[in-house]
Amino acid sequence: MAAKPILYSSWSSGCSSRVRTALALKKIDYEYQPVNLLNKQKEQEFHGNNPAEKVPILKINGLTLTESMAIIEYLDEIYPDPPLLPKEPELKARARAIAFHIASNIQPLQNKPIYLMLNEKEPGYGDFWCQHFISKGFKALEELLQMHSGDFCVGNQISIADICLPSIVYNAIEKYHVDMTPYPIITRISNKLAELPEFQVAHPNNQPDAPKN
Amino acid sequence: MAAKPILYSSWSSGCSSRVRTALALKKIDYEYQPVNLLNKQKEQEFHGNNPAEKVPILKINGLTLTESMAIIEYLDEIYPDPPLLPKEPELKARARAIAFHIASNIQPLQNKPIYLMLNEKEPGYGDFWCQHFISKGFKALEELLQMHSGDFCVGNQISIADICLPSIVYNAIEKYHVDMTPYPIITRISNKLAELPEFQVAHPNNQPDAPKN
Repeated sequence: MAAKPILYSSWSSGCSSRVRTALALKKIDYEYQPVNLLNKQKEQEFHGNNPAEKVPILKINGLTLTESMAIIEYLDEIYPDPPLLPKEPELKARARAIAFHIASNIQPLQNKPIYLMLNEKEPGYGDFWCQHFISKGFKALEELLQMHSGDFCVGNQISIADICLPSIVYNAIEKYHVDMTPYPIITRISNKLAELPEFQVAHPNNQPDAPKN
Repeated sequence: MAAKPILYSSWSSGCSSRVRTALALKKIDYEYQPVNLLNKQKEQEFHGNNPAEKVPILKINGLTLTESMAIIEYLDEIYPDPPLLPKEPELKARARAIAFHIASNIQPLQNKPIYLMLNEKEPGYGDFWCQHFISKGFKALEELLQMHSGDFCVGNQISIADICLPSIVYNAIEKYHVDMTPYPIITRISNKLAELPEFQVAHPNNQPDAPKN
């Protein structure tokens, strides 16, 4: 029997939460290994697993996998049920485009190291910066969802696009206090996803390394 | 017969060059539609094609596709020869991880709007910033390539990882004057790719909208 997969994750990492959600949707049981990215000692410990020194890292089937989007595609190929991509090539391209819009156009510009670096440059500039790029990205995202969404981001089936949505909305609201009024479709879909148990177990606040209130 | 595909592209856009390369590798003939992203008029003209107001946009088979990584995956599914991903799931995950490392961890932090915004904040800060994030990303990339490369980024077959490599190396050298000495594998693979006709036709300097010397 194969060893239980191990997920190196941080409770607040949006990229980690994508993989947590994918594992939950696929009903794959795993061991949770918390990583504190602001702790240099820890960083060195797992450098060999991922030279980029980022989470998530998933150890599964004898492999050490990095980069959330690559991990999700791997999981979807090896454990096809339920699928995380629509079957039709057109809809697959729509789901991936929305996912990559979040993962490449929004997420990298508002993560913690960026925020801290800019706030150190000038107090408040990190806040301005993250709000600016989330709002710009959400404006486009809202329009993309207007074109392609149904109950979920692309039609009525949960896909990789939905997997990428909650963590960026969480950051927008909880970390950067972005006004969500202009984004009713983003809000509607996020709220719907938040009701699903697979998204609930992957939520930042429900991780073992989340700060206790 | 299907209409000729149309690629909305900018000569200097790294994301556009990925799709130009994929189209060349797949031997798909297309019409080149140049877009000047710093021209607001143009931006509005193609907003309906991509609310994110980014190139590339590919019109193909009656579809309007956005996000370079989603477009490449679509092309690889519909036109499987030559494949842009290895067949084995493990190697596929490696190729995608390297591609996404470039596309999500490096590229978004050094593109033109970011560079201009930070240099406007403080002259020279944009240069420092872009050099910093390219160097950080290249350090990890060099280690990833040490683990997985052969003649190309993952073994001896050209993949989506190689498609993502040249434009970021081009920016590092031509735009931000990054010292490439610490990155011998990145340099070796880039040089090898630069010899291939499919990568040559996709090169920024060989596009119709490139500035004439």
